[in-house]
Amino acid sequence: MMPDLTAPFLAQLAQYRELSLETLLASIPASDGQPYLYGIIRETLGHAGKGLRPALCLATCGAFGGRLEDALYPAAALEMLHNAFLVHDDVEDYSENRHNHPTVHVRYGMPLAVNTGDAMQALSMRLLRKNAEVAGPEAAWRIFEEFDHLLLRSLEGQAMELGWIRNNDCLLKTDDYVRMVLRKTCWYSFIHPCRVGALAAGKDPASLDLFNDFGYYLGAAFQIHDDVLNLTGERQYGKETCGDLYEGKRTLMLLHLLENGTAPEKERLHALLGKPRQSRSQRDVNWVYGLMQDRGSIEYARQAAREFLTAAEAAFDTAYRDAQPNEHRQFLSSLVRYVVDRDR
Amino acid sequence: MMPDLTAPFLAQLAQYRELSLETLLASIPASDGQPYLYGIIRETLGHAGKGLRPALCLATCGAFGGRLEDALYPAAALEMLHNAFLVHDDVEDYSENRHNHPTVHVRYGMPLAVNTGDAMQALSMRLLRKNAEVAGPEAAWRIFEEFDHLLLRSLEGQAMELGWIRNNDCLLKTDDYVRMVLRKTCWYSFIHPCRVGALAAGKDPASLDLFNDFGYYLGAAFQIHDDVLNLTGERQYGKETCGDLYEGKRTLMLLHLLENGTAPEKERLHALLGKPRQSRSQRDVNWVYGLMQDRGSIEYARQAAREFLTAAEAAFDTAYRDAQPNEHRQFLSSLVRYVVDRDR
Repeated sequence: MMPDLTAPFLAQLAQYRELSLETLLASIPASDGQPYLYGIIRETLGHAGKGLRPALCLATCGAFGGRLEDALYPAAALEMLHNAFLVHDDVEDYSENRHNHPTVHVRYGMPLAVNTGDAMQALSMRLLRKNAEVAGPEAAWRIFEEFDHLLLRSLEGQAMELGWIRNNDCLLKTDDYVRMVLRKTCWYSFIHPCRVGALAAGKDPASLDLFNDFGYYLGAAFQIHDDVLNLTGERQYGKETCGDLYEGKRTLMLLHLLENGTAPEKERLHALLGKPRQSRSQRDVNWVYGLMQDRGSIEYARQAAREFLTAAEAAFDTAYRDAQPNEHRQFLSSLVRYVVDRDR
Repeated sequence: MMPDLTAPFLAQLAQYRELSLETLLASIPASDGQPYLYGIIRETLGHAGKGLRPALCLATCGAFGGRLEDALYPAAALEMLHNAFLVHDDVEDYSENRHNHPTVHVRYGMPLAVNTGDAMQALSMRLLRKNAEVAGPEAAWRIFEEFDHLLLRSLEGQAMELGWIRNNDCLLKTDDYVRMVLRKTCWYSFIHPCRVGALAAGKDPASLDLFNDFGYYLGAAFQIHDDVLNLTGERQYGKETCGDLYEGKRTLMLLHLLENGTAPEKERLHALLGKPRQSRSQRDVNWVYGLMQDRGSIEYARQAAREFLTAAEAAFDTAYRDAQPNEHRQFLSSLVRYVVDRDR
């Protein structure tokens, strides 16, 4: 732990978060007469997370010499879309807690939660339309194109993950997991926030692919770390501990176990994963978790996250080679390590 | 029935449908490796309905002297968005059949159905981005603005309806129903398709509000007729008969009954509507339906639909005053009556 380094980092993260949340909240219509839409959205955004995605976007814009104002609407759109995904993810995963609060479908029922997520997706598109007033119509469509790619890649990744669970697919390999994470997480949480920030700073669109490797490595490290935290994290993590085991999520740990367990263990695991979620017991989950410890599955995942992080650090130097040596670049450099040092 | 008039009308409706479906299908990425996303979307669109919304859009464009090509992307986006709404509506209403096929969540489970609807909303936005290549960046944003309004109004209307059911609100009046239908149905199904078609034809944006009255009256007539069909329709209607009674939907008939039943009837109705959907029996539903017949609630709704239709006919003449007397205007004029003459 390096408190002298993380304190200014966290302060700057909070600043980016405040900037983008302000823009985001201003885009939501008044709640009068619409308690079951805008009321729910405001309440949900009141528990929003750390704002990693808008921070990446704003800092990248600043690192390439852009004004933060020029990236504000896209940064707010990223955060809105992220929260829209979370509302629907929680419905799809039957998750009951998020950021230490009951999820939207627990508070208002599944039908209103689905509708609320739809409206949040629509509001993120509204922010991109507003961006045309700042960036001009042509540049705003170029940024819209990034969001179009981001949306579909993320939903493809989500479809892969949900399809695997639905099919009780137990023959997946590590490569499948990494392909899924690239789609589900890396594009929207890492690659596109950087690309969009660079675009807003006026960087040549032809150079944007440099961010793809960086965001891919960092996103994979982030997701694996997140999956490990889901198993090992304490209450401060804000979700149910071991929720992924109840859901049967194909994490790196589970794939490692499916490959490295003994034949009887694999058989029992396969049967357990084939049961409906509601009939998996605490005992089932404890058994899987214990086995993951015994077979080294959790240590295997931790090691994979570390390797992706090392790759991300090298890719950062390439992607931000032309960046200015200012506080935004410094923030990004700290962020790389933060992504896998955080404990929630 | 006027078969000599309806045959050419239906042929033209089919033509508009084919044009917009072709554009729409071309926008969906290949299904390879994404059976749980694009595979489901293609399958779902294979059972798409009559294409009322793209027809309204294309015909309005044609009636004001525009080329149909200029309205193709927005028309396809309307149809995609409509189908996205249907996928989520069916999840939210627990509906089991749509267009004579099991609904997406029945075929693939709720989680994948929610994800699929999200992707269809994203694909409709992609069609609007493509439209920038046809209309130019500035005009494409103007059309995007119509979709922004359309999306949020529709989701507001849906939130009202779902909120009323969740709260078991039994004090609603006819006016509340009409306000809800304006949001849930009229904007996206009638008003915006006309406005967008006119914009694509190059009509002055300042004149677009003329379509609002027309679309509002026609949309209300359509929705009331649709609600009546849900109760009285036969198998060809493609949904469960009386599904709205199982769902506890606040239709005009239900509000009429809540106002005109005797005190004991109201009490029983209130209690019945307060039960969870799954515990409403066929016997409950039959009782409500019989009471609606006895109290004249269905005839009341039919009469309201006729009055909205008369208002729509007058508003049509105003809204399309400057339109050319061509086949597109003729189609639109026939469509007004078709909306409440159709039996499915």
